[in-house]
Amino acid sequence: MDRRDAERLDAEDPLAWLRDRFVIDEAGPLYLDGNSLGRLPKATVAAVDAALKDAWGSGLVRSWPGWMEHAERVGDDLGRALLGAAPGQVAVSDSTTVNLYKLAAAALDARPGRRVVLSSADNFPTDRYVLEGLAAARGLELRLLEPSGPDGVGPAAVEAALGPDVALVSLSHASYLTAALEDVAAITAVAHRAGALVLWDLCHSVGAVPVELDGWGVDLAVGCTYKYVNAGPGAPAFLYVRRDLQEGLRQPIWGWFGQRDQFLMGPGYDPVPGIGRFLAGTPPMLSLVAVGTGVEVLAEAGIGPLRERSVALTELLIALWDAWLRPLGLALASPREAARRGGHISLAHPDGLRVSRALIAAGVVPDFRQPDLVRLCPAPAYTRFTEVWDAMERLRDAVGAGAHLAQDARPGRVT
Amino acid sequence: MDRRDAERLDAEDPLAWLRDRFVIDEAGPLYLDGNSLGRLPKATVAAVDAALKDAWGSGLVRSWPGWMEHAERVGDDLGRALLGAAPGQVAVSDSTTVNLYKLAAAALDARPGRRVVLSSADNFPTDRYVLEGLAAARGLELRLLEPSGPDGVGPAAVEAALGPDVALVSLSHASYLTAALEDVAAITAVAHRAGALVLWDLCHSVGAVPVELDGWGVDLAVGCTYKYVNAGPGAPAFLYVRRDLQEGLRQPIWGWFGQRDQFLMGPGYDPVPGIGRFLAGTPPMLSLVAVGTGVEVLAEAGIGPLRERSVALTELLIALWDAWLRPLGLALASPREAARRGGHISLAHPDGLRVSRALIAAGVVPDFRQPDLVRLCPAPAYTRFTEVWDAMERLRDAVGAGAHLAQDARPGRVT
Repeated sequence: MDRRDAERLDAEDPLAWLRDRFVIDEAGPLYLDGNSLGRLPKATVAAVDAALKDAWGSGLVRSWPGWMEHAERVGDDLGRALLGAAPGQVAVSDSTTVNLYKLAAAALDARPGRRVVLSSADNFPTDRYVLEGLAAARGLELRLLEPSGPDGVGPAAVEAALGPDVALVSLSHASYLTAALEDVAAITAVAHRAGALVLWDLCHSVGAVPVELDGWGVDLAVGCTYKYVNAGPGAPAFLYVRRDLQEGLRQPIWGWFGQRDQFLMGPGYDPVPGIGRFLAGTPPMLSLVAVGTGVEVLAEAGIGPLRERSVALTELLIALWDAWLRPLGLALASPREAARRGGHISLAHPDGLRVSRALIAAGVVPDFRQPDLVRLCPAPAYTRFTEVWDAMERLRDAVGAGAHLAQDARPGRVT
Repeated sequence: MDRRDAERLDAEDPLAWLRDRFVIDEAGPLYLDGNSLGRLPKATVAAVDAALKDAWGSGLVRSWPGWMEHAERVGDDLGRALLGAAPGQVAVSDSTTVNLYKLAAAALDARPGRRVVLSSADNFPTDRYVLEGLAAARGLELRLLEPSGPDGVGPAAVEAALGPDVALVSLSHASYLTAALEDVAAITAVAHRAGALVLWDLCHSVGAVPVELDGWGVDLAVGCTYKYVNAGPGAPAFLYVRRDLQEGLRQPIWGWFGQRDQFLMGPGYDPVPGIGRFLAGTPPMLSLVAVGTGVEVLAEAGIGPLRERSVALTELLIALWDAWLRPLGLALASPREAARRGGHISLAHPDGLRVSRALIAAGVVPDFRQPDLVRLCPAPAYTRFTEVWDAMERLRDAVGAGAHLAQDARPGRVT
């Protein structure tokens, strides 16, 4: 295997055109952190500019009807293109944290008398904290399944922990640590057999891995849009509520954007019957416009081809790890089997923080996650095969030369 | 009084330069709806463009340390310039609705055993709905003081409703209906004497009326930034928690942006001691940048001169109402005394919806609020005295000619 293999993969790549949809500074570092913050689509520059100057600057308050339509359309577009969700089940607003809070609280209210919330000890921190807070406020028990390593939690462990006391199972589709994919359909099915509701966090899978919320029978889901969906820093998150559950659920933040006949401003809260009842306040429109264009770019490519490309990129990355980095003490912390992992690869090293910093010094942007994981994400929308090759070569050379030993070992942000 | 009086006021206006800080289509309609959505500052166009192309497009994830600093600075700048709040007490993130929910819940937790929440029947709808939801979830009573007309609720009515069972008093500083200003210091004092906490909604006062949260002894406050602060549609809102209360309060949405050593991603929620514990998820950075520039523009003018100008503009508006519109059946629904009102004027007309629509047809953008209020806001940062003159003239001519009778009478958005 040599670099010409990567060059050939780039040359034969049916999605090579997609990179040109993004603003990319070719003189910048090799970017393998699209699972933390995705790149800027060119369409977003134009759309935000128009939202600023035309819709806001000239249209002013007269643009609200169009913005409201846009907000509903973005949810439906996202659902159709990336979530396997029929229209009327997805809304984009608020942060992942706030959306998780709203849906988890609604689910717990719908299972009175059951006193256990089930999640995993290696679920993303904000998920664990939100569930911990809800459990504490209601006198429930948050039961965390033990860290499961590169294989994920799995339906068997969930089934073993289920019982008539479990109200809600809340897990991530793809692990932020290892990219291990859970079997959403199987876990949802075992949870339903025990009478529990499920709430999936799709932050680390949406836009990289096909999701079939309707087909998998999922009750509730949330996810962010600033990773693979490329909607920008802190872009509003989405929430999904299966249609037949919507009218029976009530979220705790009763706000005017969930109100029937909002501008009649009536005396009591009377939520709309549909997905809108899971909204609270005014959505941030500039950021929402960027969600729309982020979704459009991925929709044009299609999640199927994106996933194929993502698998090919991570396969190359693993092959190079096997050849070059395994001998240098870096362990593969992600599933080796492509079908079991999402869009990134984590490599464990006892000195992972300093390895990450050495990689940055070598012109590659990775991510680092406690305690020892170097996360490398060749996001499928814009990362070239040769970029993976070059990044891995630099990682090999840096660690091989002991360059990480010269880096600061104190905790803190890596980038 | 003739138009030359308004021309003279414009010519002698010490803040006339401020209008040039905004993107204004001089061929567009006369805009008297800055209390719904403020205009676009020129600095925001440049700042959002830089945030998009430089910080996000080129800097990517490496821009996060700068964004985090910016988020903290925007809160402090807003506090200093517009809220009378020393640093470390204001954060900008989430919507007004979500912030109100967080702070009201924290306040209720801090007053266990007290079973009444006090607000007013004409408080802004999202405030009433949020409080209604919290009261319902906790088995508390939401007690709404009766609509108080152009004089506001007032300390006497609040004092009469207070007792040892009241946990929280939550009111708006300026009424969204009439612009009536409450005496925040006096109401806060009577609430404190009864052992209750206060939570003020500043949406309709911030940026138009001087606010002295520290000086008035306020416990908690929230407000939006897309009205007089000109931060754009759905821009994130702020929250204020007085410093000595911060460590003793805990809000219900436990998220990673409130967590101590956030990127250590520890096992349990352990909130930071300061204002950061009232954050939840990732703030929307593009929109937050626009809050920063919105605050800067007003800070340059100073809230004192802005208030003087606002009073002069609304005095002119009232004088013209008195001369022209009172005889046509429009009633002044806002306080006549300048010190008792905020930045807008509401005129009541039995056919207010159609009057609003006729005004739009005449090239003026007002707002309409159920059941009969035409809201007119000469926002002090950019509205000319001659614009007020011309708008009132068009309103006089439209109603005088019965032009409103040709408009659609069915409910729906006016603009």
